[in-house]
Amino acid sequence: MYDTLKFEGDTLILIDQRKLPQKVEFFKCRDYRDVEFAIADMVVRGAPAIGAAGAYGVYLAASEFKNNSEEVFFKKVKEANKVLVKARPTAVNLFWAINRMEQAMKRNRNKPVSEILEILREEADNIAREDVETNQAIGKFGNEVIPQGATILTHCNAGALATVGYGTALGVIRAAHESGKNIKVYADETRPRLQGARLTAFELVEEGIPVTLIADSVAATLIRDGVIDVIVVGADRIASNGDTANKIGTFMLSELAVRFGVPLYIAAPVSTIDFDINDGSEIVIEERSPEEVTHIQGIQIAPDGVEVYNPAFDVTPAENITGIITEKGIIEPPYKEGIASLKSSQKKGDIDGQL
Amino acid sequence: MYDTLKFEGDTLILIDQRKLPQKVEFFKCRDYRDVEFAIADMVVRGAPAIGAAGAYGVYLAASEFKNNSEEVFFKKVKEANKVLVKARPTAVNLFWAINRMEQAMKRNRNKPVSEILEILREEADNIAREDVETNQAIGKFGNEVIPQGATILTHCNAGALATVGYGTALGVIRAAHESGKNIKVYADETRPRLQGARLTAFELVEEGIPVTLIADSVAATLIRDGVIDVIVVGADRIASNGDTANKIGTFMLSELAVRFGVPLYIAAPVSTIDFDINDGSEIVIEERSPEEVTHIQGIQIAPDGVEVYNPAFDVTPAENITGIITEKGIIEPPYKEGIASLKSSQKKGDIDGQL
Repeated sequence: MYDTLKFEGDTLILIDQRKLPQKVEFFKCRDYRDVEFAIADMVVRGAPAIGAAGAYGVYLAASEFKNNSEEVFFKKVKEANKVLVKARPTAVNLFWAINRMEQAMKRNRNKPVSEILEILREEADNIAREDVETNQAIGKFGNEVIPQGATILTHCNAGALATVGYGTALGVIRAAHESGKNIKVYADETRPRLQGARLTAFELVEEGIPVTLIADSVAATLIRDGVIDVIVVGADRIASNGDTANKIGTFMLSELAVRFGVPLYIAAPVSTIDFDINDGSEIVIEERSPEEVTHIQGIQIAPDGVEVYNPAFDVTPAENITGIITEKGIIEPPYKEGIASLKSSQKKGDIDGQL
Repeated sequence: MYDTLKFEGDTLILIDQRKLPQKVEFFKCRDYRDVEFAIADMVVRGAPAIGAAGAYGVYLAASEFKNNSEEVFFKKVKEANKVLVKARPTAVNLFWAINRMEQAMKRNRNKPVSEILEILREEADNIAREDVETNQAIGKFGNEVIPQGATILTHCNAGALATVGYGTALGVIRAAHESGKNIKVYADETRPRLQGARLTAFELVEEGIPVTLIADSVAATLIRDGVIDVIVVGADRIASNGDTANKIGTFMLSELAVRFGVPLYIAAPVSTIDFDINDGSEIVIEERSPEEVTHIQGIQIAPDGVEVYNPAFDVTPAENITGIITEKGIIEPPYKEGIASLKSSQKKGDIDGQL
């Protein structure tokens, strides 16, 4: 498997996910503006991966402004962070990671800038390293709910490519495969950006995990017909009550899962939980460009002049979710309590709302 | 609007629906094998349209074999019909139309071949002409269930391009628009063949009916959020109990419609009803090639070697359907009774099972 991201010299190197699986190309971010572009244009995508990329973006900004006066340095980095955090509005991990970088900067504000730079680089490296460990823990806990020989449905890509490595939903699938459970996977292609066809299928084929690709509309009959034993997907933001924003189409799957009694699990790190919002109604749903629907890899598939509605995410209500698999364990309903107890064990940032 | 099909000289001319909306090209069928290819490869698609195309295919076969002995003529035409009827397995209209052509041949078996040829040409023309009249009647009846200012969701293309003209589900939408109801339409793009994006959007943009294109996964949130007032789709085969095979994804919509109290209507001619089957379990679901999912217009979007499951249709159970709009009126539940009374008013073919 290729690295989703790595930092070499003074450059953040991303595998260009817009071009997979046909081309393996790398996108180099030499400053924070490159990082902002890469996140907005989905060179890098997946909530945990854009969190880590954002953290390196903060370091690149700090590096760029290191020769300014201390006052200007802090001001410019803060401005850069505001740009970075707005690159995509729905995933909270981006906010979380940049917040964590700002905390590190604040704690060390009295040190010389050169030292702060080192600390920021270390903090970004920590975020990246911890993400892989986190996903392995998610995989371990998630594996407990995967039956022997299970057929698993997943949506979008919550894999190694959506994270720094291993994956969240695909981390659970990897762990189940590694433990010899003889699992099979159905992957929704996930229109419009086709992350399922391009990225999830790519990862699973590479690892030799049996995978069957389907159009998004096919899942309903597979769920009805008892083909699917369990559904595992990732998340972009989880509210305090368990409502979960994830790739458009997740809500549809959740309704069918409830209707036909198939368990649906969210696999996501605690950094995906937005403790500051009560429920899904407070989650901003990003709308992306019409061209994502009217064109596929530059080829026009719809007539000129047609209107398009292209939301990137939907919100699955907590009551449709069987469990939320985190690196701390599986949260089960009622989610409010489980999430609140996680919150008290988390360090709380103090710049919320200020970015 | 272009003609879906027309017969000129000794050639069936089809608008090539594989290439719309970017290119308007025509595909010429000079013998029944061309017609079989055109149906199988979806140059022409939509249950009523492939019925009419199939009828002209029978005429082309008769024309090709007219110089044989009478015995050989009938044998060869019958063989050609067997090829034609198998071009696509799910839509019953193809079977119905070829059956009707065979009936005409049988009734006139004692006439000279030259006269039989004329009769077959006339019968194919009748099937085509009646289809447009049928759709206009479907539009008229269907318009009664469309509220003023309604927002209508449709799936796939059940429009002029799926029929000889006017359309079934889009016939209802056209009729509502023509009667000044200020309707708006959401069109699912309908993966994998994108008939919604390519054909429905094309027809509605051409006619100035407001249309918004969405990925198939978006419909669920629109239905939940009360944006959609009514869903109208076509059908490829309707069983005696009302179970309806239609484009993959229809079943998913029907479950969401029931869940959130949105009426869902099937719009289809009586020729779509298969009076010989009791329920949807007897409907053969066509599986199409993996390339329809792994490639879009020749461009690969999934990794080499991935397995694909690509059913073209699904079956929506009768209990999820609010009404079936036919040219004879709207059938409401219980469908068994309504469909049985339609059956007794239909002429019954006698070659069922023999093709």
